[in-house]
Amino acid sequence: MYRRELLSLGILALIPQIRLDAQAPPADLIADLVAGNHILANEMVLDGYGHISVRHPGNTNRFLLSRSLAPESVTAADIMEHDLEGNPIDARGRSPYKERFIHSEIYRVRADVNAVVHCHTPSLIPYGVTGAPLRPMYHQSAFLAAGVPVFEIREAAGMTNMLVETKPIGAALAKVLGNKPAALMRGHGAVVVADTIPNVVGRSIYLDLNARIQLQAQQLVADARQGVTITPISPEEAQKYAASDNYARAWELWKKKAR
Amino acid sequence: MYRRELLSLGILALIPQIRLDAQAPPADLIADLVAGNHILANEMVLDGYGHISVRHPGNTNRFLLSRSLAPESVTAADIMEHDLEGNPIDARGRSPYKERFIHSEIYRVRADVNAVVHCHTPSLIPYGVTGAPLRPMYHQSAFLAAGVPVFEIREAAGMTNMLVETKPIGAALAKVLGNKPAALMRGHGAVVVADTIPNVVGRSIYLDLNARIQLQAQQLVADARQGVTITPISPEEAQKYAASDNYARAWELWKKKAR
Amino acid sequence: MYRRELLSLGILALIPQIRLDAQAPPADLIADLVAGNHILANEMVLDGYGHISVRHPGNTNRFLLSRSLAPESVTAADIMEHDLEGNPIDARGRSPYKERFIHSEIYRVRADVNAVVHCHTPSLIPYGVTGAPLRPMYHQSAFLAAGVPVFEIREAAGMTNMLVETKPIGAALAKVLGNKPAALMRGHGAVVVADTIPNVVGRSIYLDLNARIQLQAQQLVADARQGVTITPISPEEAQKYAASDNYARAWELWKKKAR
Amino acid sequence: MYRRELLSLGILALIPQIRLDAQAPPADLIADLVAGNHILANEMVLDGYGHISVRHPGNTNRFLLSRSLAPESVTAADIMEHDLEGNPIDARGRSPYKERFIHSEIYRVRADVNAVVHCHTPSLIPYGVTGAPLRPMYHQSAFLAAGVPVFEIREAAGMTNMLVETKPIGAALAKVLGNKPAALMRGHGAVVVADTIPNVVGRSIYLDLNARIQLQAQQLVADARQGVTITPISPEEAQKYAASDNYARAWELWKKKAR
Repeated sequence: MYRRELLSLGILALIPQIRLDAQAPPADLIADLVAGNHILANEMVLDGYGHISVRHPGNTNRFLLSRSLAPESVTAADIMEHDLEGNPIDARGRSPYKERFIHSEIYRVRADVNAVVHCHTPSLIPYGVTGAPLRPMYHQSAFLAAGVPVFEIREAAGMTNMLVETKPIGAALAKVLGNKPAALMRGHGAVVVADTIPNVVGRSIYLDLNARIQLQAQQLVADARQGVTITPISPEEAQKYAASDNYARAWELWKKKAR
Repeated sequence: MYRRELLSLGILALIPQIRLDAQAPPADLIADLVAGNHILANEMVLDGYGHISVRHPGNTNRFLLSRSLAPESVTAADIMEHDLEGNPIDARGRSPYKERFIHSEIYRVRADVNAVVHCHTPSLIPYGVTGAPLRPMYHQSAFLAAGVPVFEIREAAGMTNMLVETKPIGAALAKVLGNKPAALMRGHGAVVVADTIPNVVGRSIYLDLNARIQLQAQQLVADARQGVTITPISPEEAQKYAASDNYARAWELWKKKAR
Repeated sequence: MYRRELLSLGILALIPQIRLDAQAPPADLIADLVAGNHILANEMVLDGYGHISVRHPGNTNRFLLSRSLAPESVTAADIMEHDLEGNPIDARGRSPYKERFIHSEIYRVRADVNAVVHCHTPSLIPYGVTGAPLRPMYHQSAFLAAGVPVFEIREAAGMTNMLVETKPIGAALAKVLGNKPAALMRGHGAVVVADTIPNVVGRSIYLDLNARIQLQAQQLVADARQGVTITPISPEEAQKYAASDNYARAWELWKKKAR
Repeated sequence: MYRRELLSLGILALIPQIRLDAQAPPADLIADLVAGNHILANEMVLDGYGHISVRHPGNTNRFLLSRSLAPESVTAADIMEHDLEGNPIDARGRSPYKERFIHSEIYRVRADVNAVVHCHTPSLIPYGVTGAPLRPMYHQSAFLAAGVPVFEIREAAGMTNMLVETKPIGAALAKVLGNKPAALMRGHGAVVVADTIPNVVGRSIYLDLNARIQLQAQQLVADARQGVTITPISPEEAQKYAASDNYARAWELWKKKAR
């Protein structure tokens, strides 16, 4: 009410920084973020842990992330705005996730990224602890042709509790991620990034599927032992596919199934 | 209304081609096609992508296929008639699937085929990317004794976005399929064909099961390493089985479960 | 009505064979047989195919089996009495299963068996096509210590349609089964026998679990390759376990879950 | 009523042992124990068998455990108090679990343990029958860095029915468990211990997940055969993680899902 009156007076236009800080994120973006939480739980990419965030469209130095809660239980009232230091802006007693620095440090260095998922999907852990390289098995996971680096927290911070609970560790993870769509975290999980919520959700789901498919492909190769090899999607194929499709059709289905 | 009046006047009988073009497909066939979409989603052969079509019984140069939509969400109102060029006849603003040429080109050269499924079932991808041959592990998948060729899109069209979005690529796929019941598509998925909707659905479900069973059988062989080998269904056994059974009993169960 | 009057006249006691033939099976046995069908479908031991039967308690030359129907859909009205020739006694237009001779021939030679399951459980097929021996991985499947023979239909009948559709093939299967609790059928499935419905259901469920567990154990051995071996339940342990337990507690849970 | 009057008279304070014996456990602890039963069934750690107990907070020589019943069906009325001899205190016709000595003997020697789970989770059996060592694949199962010993019942009692039905076998199991968070039981299952119900439930769930993840990691290593090895969570990382987290957030989700 107060903000609307100020707007009608044209005052806010004169003080842009305050206007941005006070600007509420669009309701449909919040709804998509809540849906993303529910979808990732329903598709078993997340269990009681892990999180998804989105950059504030009206203030690129802010992002939206639930308070510390199991993703399946997140509602619009749990979404908090955070700054790039990882601080919640208006916590009102709500506890933030310990590992919010994963999000803040990635948003800081990746201007192309508007949505981030941090997950512990079981299919991904084996690749992280062995370093066996993930490769794109089919078009749906073609984005993996860019390569998926592995973040070894020991290189950044020695012996830790494995969690990304500080800015420096978050920054080290963001550096290993580089310009890639995803990074594995040894003994922990993964981080996935994209330009929109539906795309980061889609990438997370197909990253999981790709990991399970690749393990089976490697077993066929190991079993056959007769010159059988794997032909992954090539970088050129991946680039052409990226230009021609996204996860828009599946997004509606995932939302329906998660309801 | 208009068509009914023409019919009552007996005019349509004099101009067969027009009559065929205008002929509506039977309502129970549409219902089966909708059920086929729901069953394949429910049995996890399809996810948000992939499709199933049926040839028009009143016009063999036409086939029925949903507009571009997740199979689980398809209703009778989404079914569109297509010609063998892959063009929807009466789109009324509805977008067709990009890969409808998979269907049109197979119907063009396979007079025995009345139903086609295109899927990305995860269990099939490992066989496509390695070329490890699928073999029939039990009677339910005996149709695989005919062999399952692998379509390498690079041989047909070089580096692509992996999708069968044109007539020539569809024709190349149909050529690799030949007279077989199914073909794998490297880095993409598979195509399955049959004479009826229940049979193409049944073949798709048991193709998935066979792929999962065969991987386990190969692991037992690899683990044992002591002269243990796999005895698949022989072509003669497959031929005798084909003459004696179909998926009719399961079809009723699949429909019930997908409701 | 007629039977009750005869009974009240004491006439039936004088002609035992007729009395037995006319005797209706207990309603709670029929209910258990229907429950067994639903449980095996719900626990994914059966899909649209396969069947479970029970010997008639009042006439050991008869057994009860559904008409040809997906197990999940079976009701009391579908249960038909069969004789040991595999003929339904009072079909009233209801079609019997083609493979009813699996049941009739086992009941003929196994006086200790009162319940039979025929299944195509996916986890079992790999053992049947490779001949890798199933061994008991834990107490719940200790009954496997007796050994699980593999029925090769080619030895009994050459090249067939893989189905046990005749008395001679059923008799050959029963001979391979011998005095064991279960037999695999190459390229087809398995048969499981026990003294009661709950026990044959329990054995079927834990046979499936054991097959999946054993594959994983063999993978650990194959991966380790360092003197690691599998220690199965020994025959003596199995014998002691058999005397001390059954599946009674689980039976109530399985019924509840299948409702 | 009687107890309340005694309390109001201050008499019970004079006779502590009687007071403790008569003290009812807190209702919310019973509710958590019932929830623990339902959660472990819902998360497929338990099927129709296995059990979870909690130490009596008012009497460390007592513990609470359901009567012999499938965990999914347990209600507050089924919970019975047991002493450390394994005897139910007030059975009122309710049958105790045969293997209650697993619980009593662990509570006897592990003052730090307030909750015990005994399970037959399928993913764990392969490690028990091969002795392949379980190692912590990620932070969620970091507690495994302490090591998971294997109990071979033959060493304790020769050829048995595999069950822990006596005090001496329970004591032998507790001795093998030592000060660890879990022990495998060859050909049988596992026992998991912790300080609270949510923690023993969380450890059981992530023990299962870890077993499945580790098998896949070992397969990647076996398939690659090129110097690829597994880097598990180190003891130091596990110790730091233990100090920083627990399963509290997931507990609320597991309860919600099990309802």
